Amino acid sequence: MKISLEATAEMLLCKDNIAILVHTHPDGDTLGSGYTLCHALRSIGKNACVIGEDEIPDRYKFMKEDGDEESFDPEFVVAVDIATVKLMGDCVGERFGDRVDLCIDHHVTNSMYAKSVLLDDTASAASEIIFRLVPMLGAKISKEMAEALYIGVSTDTGCFRYSNVTPTTLRIAADLMELGADCARINREIFETKSRSFAELERMALGSTELFFDGKFALITVTQQMFKESGSNEDEFDKIAALPRQIEGVLVGAAMREQKNGTFKVSVRTNPPLNAAEICTLMNGGGHPAAAGCTLTGTKEENKETLLKTIAKFL
Amino acid sequence: MKISLEATAEMLLCKDNIAILVHTHPDGDTLGSGYTLCHALRSIGKNACVIGEDEIPDRYKFMKEDGDEESFDPEFVVAVDIATVKLMGDCVGERFGDRVDLCIDHHVTNSMYAKSVLLDDTASAASEIIFRLVPMLGAKISKEMAEALYIGVSTDTGCFRYSNVTPTTLRIAADLMELGADCARINREIFETKSRSFAELERMALGSTELFFDGKFALITVTQQMFKESGSNEDEFDKIAALPRQIEGVLVGAAMREQKNGTFKVSVRTNPPLNAAEICTLMNGGGHPAAAGCTLTGTKEENKETLLKTIAKFL
Repeated sequence: MKISLEATAEMLLCKDNIAILVHTHPDGDTLGSGYTLCHALRSIGKNACVIGEDEIPDRYKFMKEDGDEESFDPEFVVAVDIATVKLMGDCVGERFGDRVDLCIDHHVTNSMYAKSVLLDDTASAASEIIFRLVPMLGAKISKEMAEALYIGVSTDTGCFRYSNVTPTTLRIAADLMELGADCARINREIFETKSRSFAELERMALGSTELFFDGKFALITVTQQMFKESGSNEDEFDKIAALPRQIEGVLVGAAMREQKNGTFKVSVRTNPPLNAAEICTLMNGGGHPAAAGCTLTGTKEENKETLLKTIAKFL
Repeated sequence: MKISLEATAEMLLCKDNIAILVHTHPDGDTLGSGYTLCHALRSIGKNACVIGEDEIPDRYKFMKEDGDEESFDPEFVVAVDIATVKLMGDCVGERFGDRVDLCIDHHVTNSMYAKSVLLDDTASAASEIIFRLVPMLGAKISKEMAEALYIGVSTDTGCFRYSNVTPTTLRIAADLMELGADCARINREIFETKSRSFAELERMALGSTELFFDGKFALITVTQQMFKESGSNEDEFDKIAALPRQIEGVLVGAAMREQKNGTFKVSVRTNPPLNAAEICTLMNGGGHPAAAGCTLTGTKEENKETLLKTIAKFL
């Protein structure tokens, strides 16, 4: 059932021993919103912890505080920025998938798996929703929370570049800056810094670029071998995903990365009028109009065929 | 003499036949603020025109309207986003350098060459100042003006990434979006699109990267030959200027580009605590704390030595 922001705040205020779930391959938004909610709940005297399937990327580890671990029996389960049970990962999904009490999300593709859902698909990031929720819990947004939320909003919008940015997004960012977030440092670290290993991966990835359909579709393929040779890792892949769409004339850009288990995760980015979520839905994935994803289990060549056949329907 | 925003509006309301000067190698901010001021003045019944030494880059040509040309004898001269007379270029500087009535600027290095100066060095862009000035003239900010001002603010801040962004910057961007600016399209065209020729230049430029002082200084050099081979041009150089500082560990990044007359224009970008304006001042240039520039007239090797000697003083 869909519920309002007010009802969400009231519900949380009545509960204790709260587990907050974040999605696999955790990004700035699921972590920024998850840890901020956790710290807000703990600041008003509740037990709360963050649970996720995968390790937190180094650059986001600062969000975690002592006491954020599971040290109690969860009685109330909240999923943040998780559109489907599958995105919880195998273990977390197995344990909590059918008992999520509340989901706070901004994905239009949310499968409504939770008992109550606070869904705002006009929000650029789940962190926008948490920004409004925290004061309603009677908690204060500290400098640390402001930085975590700023990371959520800025990473989900490509640092305010994508079409999901609204006037509200920019005003929330302004408020977070006034609450003490060192936005210039965060932007520099996240958006303006390349490790040497990433620079190497980027060169290899650009070298793999293939153009199809008269230059309207650009595909980059990154293999486990490339990760190994460059010394880079999958955490840094997001920035590669943005590259194919940047070439002039491209309407759909896809970046396909081989995972350790041999399947390929595909990130699709579109320019209007094409809709990335519609494209990925046909391949059992989902996401947003301009940025979506799916997982393909074939070989590299088979997956390329799947992508070409699917995208042909939209061009 | 420094004057206030209110005094600036009153002054402009008393004048007519107004020439608005923009700087050489015109960027989004000098053009966005110059054309918006011009259109605001014309909308309240005044003669106004924009005068600049160099051609407008294609992507900004939409800002120009019929009637923006000089078709009257200028009686009042306004410089926007021009810190020194030298930045007007030879012809414009010769004609107007000693008779600028009003300068509207945000550069802390402004040489105060104008009779009256509206200087706000807390503004990320001159366009922020024009955004506040236009309503005080009794003019309305149209969708077209909002887009020109958004371009000014976004290009001067690297699309809200740099340290010059303030809460005010973000709120002005939110207001401009509400005034009709299609920010997503502008961001895509300016920040997320690479022409094939630029992609080629970028590859060459990255190949020229040299590291000095234990990786604290990174230098990229782009020659006229590279512009020729890639088919790219100097308008696209701004994006190259940002690259050297992005490498992890770099405190000063410089990009040196050979101009058609054989001199080299140097763009310097720093990470705190280093100050790009201080570095460039020692080489007869200027700019902002994080982004500044200068022109060097030696050979490529001589200029590199000049840069190394100057930057050594700060490391």
